[in-house]
Amino acid sequence: MSTHTQRSGDRYFEDVELGEERTVADARTITETDIVNYAGVSGDFGDIHVSEEAAKETGFGQRIAPGNMVHAIAETIGIDWAVEAFSYGHDNIRFVNPVFIGDTITVHTEVVAVEDYDDEFGRVVNKYTVTNQRDETVLVDEHILLVKRRNAGE
Amino acid sequence: MSTHTQRSGDRYFEDVELGEERTVADARTITETDIVNYAGVSGDFGDIHVSEEAAKETGFGQRIAPGNMVHAIAETIGIDWAVEAFSYGHDNIRFVNPVFIGDTITVHTEVVAVEDYDDEFGRVVNKYTVTNQRDETVLVDEHILLVKRRNAGE
Amino acid sequence: MSTHTQRSGDRYFEDVELGEERTVADARTITETDIVNYAGVSGDFGDIHVSEEAAKETGFGQRIAPGNMVHAIAETIGIDWAVEAFSYGHDNIRFVNPVFIGDTITVHTEVVAVEDYDDEFGRVVNKYTVTNQRDETVLVDEHILLVKRRNAGE
Amino acid sequence: MSTHTQRSGDRYFEDVELGEERTVADARTITETDIVNYAGVSGDFGDIHVSEEAAKETGFGQRIAPGNMVHAIAETIGIDWAVEAFSYGHDNIRFVNPVFIGDTITVHTEVVAVEDYDDEFGRVVNKYTVTNQRDETVLVDEHILLVKRRNAGE
Amino acid sequence: MSTHTQRSGDRYFEDVELGEERTVADARTITETDIVNYAGVSGDFGDIHVSEEAAKETGFGQRIAPGNMVHAIAETIGIDWAVEAFSYGHDNIRFVNPVFIGDTITVHTEVVAVEDYDDEFGRVVNKYTVTNQRDETVLVDEHILLVKRRNAGE
Amino acid sequence: MSTHTQRSGDRYFEDVELGEERTVADARTITETDIVNYAGVSGDFGDIHVSEEAAKETGFGQRIAPGNMVHAIAETIGIDWAVEAFSYGHDNIRFVNPVFIGDTITVHTEVVAVEDYDDEFGRVVNKYTVTNQRDETVLVDEHILLVKRRNAGE
Repeated sequence: MSTHTQRSGDRYFEDVELGEERTVADARTITETDIVNYAGVSGDFGDIHVSEEAAKETGFGQRIAPGNMVHAIAETIGIDWAVEAFSYGHDNIRFVNPVFIGDTITVHTEVVAVEDYDDEFGRVVNKYTVTNQRDETVLVDEHILLVKRRNAGE
Repeated sequence: MSTHTQRSGDRYFEDVELGEERTVADARTITETDIVNYAGVSGDFGDIHVSEEAAKETGFGQRIAPGNMVHAIAETIGIDWAVEAFSYGHDNIRFVNPVFIGDTITVHTEVVAVEDYDDEFGRVVNKYTVTNQRDETVLVDEHILLVKRRNAGE
Repeated sequence: MSTHTQRSGDRYFEDVELGEERTVADARTITETDIVNYAGVSGDFGDIHVSEEAAKETGFGQRIAPGNMVHAIAETIGIDWAVEAFSYGHDNIRFVNPVFIGDTITVHTEVVAVEDYDDEFGRVVNKYTVTNQRDETVLVDEHILLVKRRNAGE
Repeated sequence: MSTHTQRSGDRYFEDVELGEERTVADARTITETDIVNYAGVSGDFGDIHVSEEAAKETGFGQRIAPGNMVHAIAETIGIDWAVEAFSYGHDNIRFVNPVFIGDTITVHTEVVAVEDYDDEFGRVVNKYTVTNQRDETVLVDEHILLVKRRNAGE
Repeated sequence: MSTHTQRSGDRYFEDVELGEERTVADARTITETDIVNYAGVSGDFGDIHVSEEAAKETGFGQRIAPGNMVHAIAETIGIDWAVEAFSYGHDNIRFVNPVFIGDTITVHTEVVAVEDYDDEFGRVVNKYTVTNQRDETVLVDEHILLVKRRNAGE
Repeated sequence: MSTHTQRSGDRYFEDVELGEERTVADARTITETDIVNYAGVSGDFGDIHVSEEAAKETGFGQRIAPGNMVHAIAETIGIDWAVEAFSYGHDNIRFVNPVFIGDTITVHTEVVAVEDYDDEFGRVVNKYTVTNQRDETVLVDEHILLVKRRNAGE
């Protein structure tokens, strides 16, 4: 297991309930800057992201945000409730609709699985549905988290 | 479908063969800078990534790279062969082992599915295995791509 | 008044008590990357920040972090409790000791004033004391916030 | 004392006169990029800064720049006259009016105090008044500097 | 000699022919973000780049991109064909026309010299002509490269 | 002509003398962060810059800074004397020795040509010699500038 994303939240594995939902509305506007900066970090200078002229000739008609970037931003927004959690992996990430420059995303999460893992952590699957300001779904994801147990290590 | 990652490659869907493999060895060193910059782009300031003191108290003993960042960098390295391709989604991303500051990653890909999609694109699943300089697997991923057909739109 | 820093907290002005304290221990390691990136954003390429050779000849003996940067990072860490708050200003910011590359900061806040402001907001002064991993105070600040009232606008 | 901001200026403490003023007109346009980059460095992703939709619902009607960022940029612009100076602290920072994306700031400084400090440095208070292209004051600040004496250390 | 720019290309010195040409059309849109980020990396906050108000009063009437930035971006785009190459230097860089925010550049290269250098490398001069979407030449450059020989070191 | 680099200097074309020299000693340490950030801005992820493992196998034995980056940083450091100047071009840039992570550069300039250009500007060639902390020359450049005349436009 690996990516740790400790947050200032106050919930332990025992507090997580199957079916619980959260929504962070209008959480972040995806800007041209985000796209250019993400290209710089990831190395992905695909022309649909960084060339307006090339993008005009695609079906999108304009530059679009990298799916992985929208995914990363959304995950951060939706994960601030746990005392301590590690990212175990992802299933079923789908880039359902393009995110254009200036779109603002809303992040909705639902707990779709709660399972034992080991003495220290429990396994939680948090399903993400990311929408834009036109209420279109742009991304779905099943994020598998290992969430700290309240009495871990005792 | 959505994320477009056009590359300077020369291969169309018809050129892709089931089972073909690629390796880009020692492709990129994951630096403290990458981690700090990625926090800035994603907004993920989880303390396992940005606090050395907090990280010392975890099982890792030091800061680790965000899994999504390693994933994004690896995908960029492994995708430079197509004339035009869109990222349809991902299955089965697993963060198998931590990536520490200073680790250098090698990216191995294998085509594990080649299927018709529509008149313009074919569907390809490219399986990623990312290893570090100690030959440990750090990440796996099944990247679903829509790859342009040679005679698309004719 | 101006800078808005809405956070995912759940506290209104009425919930704030004089004397309440918070500590976020080992919140963030100040890296060389932070210093270089902050130079790029602020334009401050003072050589005590960006030249190791020049810094060696000062009393510090090495590069130090810009005080304003430490201040900005600490403020962000200490402010995540309000439903909605605006930054009204700062008094008495003092850069008490240098922050070196690799130092990890702990952020302590104490509410030192709670006053009426208008129908929508109350005025709160949050005193910051930032320490390093050697328990030295590096920065103090009195941050004046306008915090949303529970029944604002009714 | 701590933050050092050596500049290519040629003035020592003895050259500084009470009441001297400087203006750098139209010094820098505050862009969406600055705001996004500053969020990344400070960690402040308050939605008034990074969500256009959320910002529309505030009294500002649009995203605004973080006050600390405007402060940091203005300080850099106004400090290029000293041979060597350290930032001792700030008093009375007030965010008087919002700075919107695309606003261009003018930086005016006036020396409001000149006092002995020790054998090496003198104490100077430089009062900042930052205005936008509509001649509105957006920020004030009293920056306390320790400025090198001409014969320091002799 | 010094800057190494190894690329995923497959061409050795022996494969390079005098007069060969390449064009990468609509390769990248130069954004406000690129200009602000480049200022941060280079330290060049010249007001023609970062102040819209100051730029209005020049003959250009608006902010322009730093010539060195356009040069750096163009070089990267035009160099992806070699197995291994080092940058030896540049002659005759000329900033022929301004690049404005939102312009998209096309990169054309022509090999104008092919010469022996030593046992490991050959010397190639690659002439760059960078144009914008209005077919105006914005930059020319003669890039001197040392390109790996096929049997280097044997 | 194109790149404008207005600076806070006070010198006009008439003030520039053939043979005048300037040195900014220990001006900036080239960090891993600079290299990673420059890769992000330029798009140049050549493995000699971003892969420690690949770099070990070259003659350099470690990662080196991109020559164009060192050039851009040095130019900014050496140009702060003019009231207003435009970058016309460069001749004879040579990357004489590698710059490694942690090296600190000194920038020396000498005016090697002063010529009339038109009624508004004069033409100045400023020869750069960049050295490291071991007194090795790492870069030379002849920077052609158009420098504002004192009575331009009268």
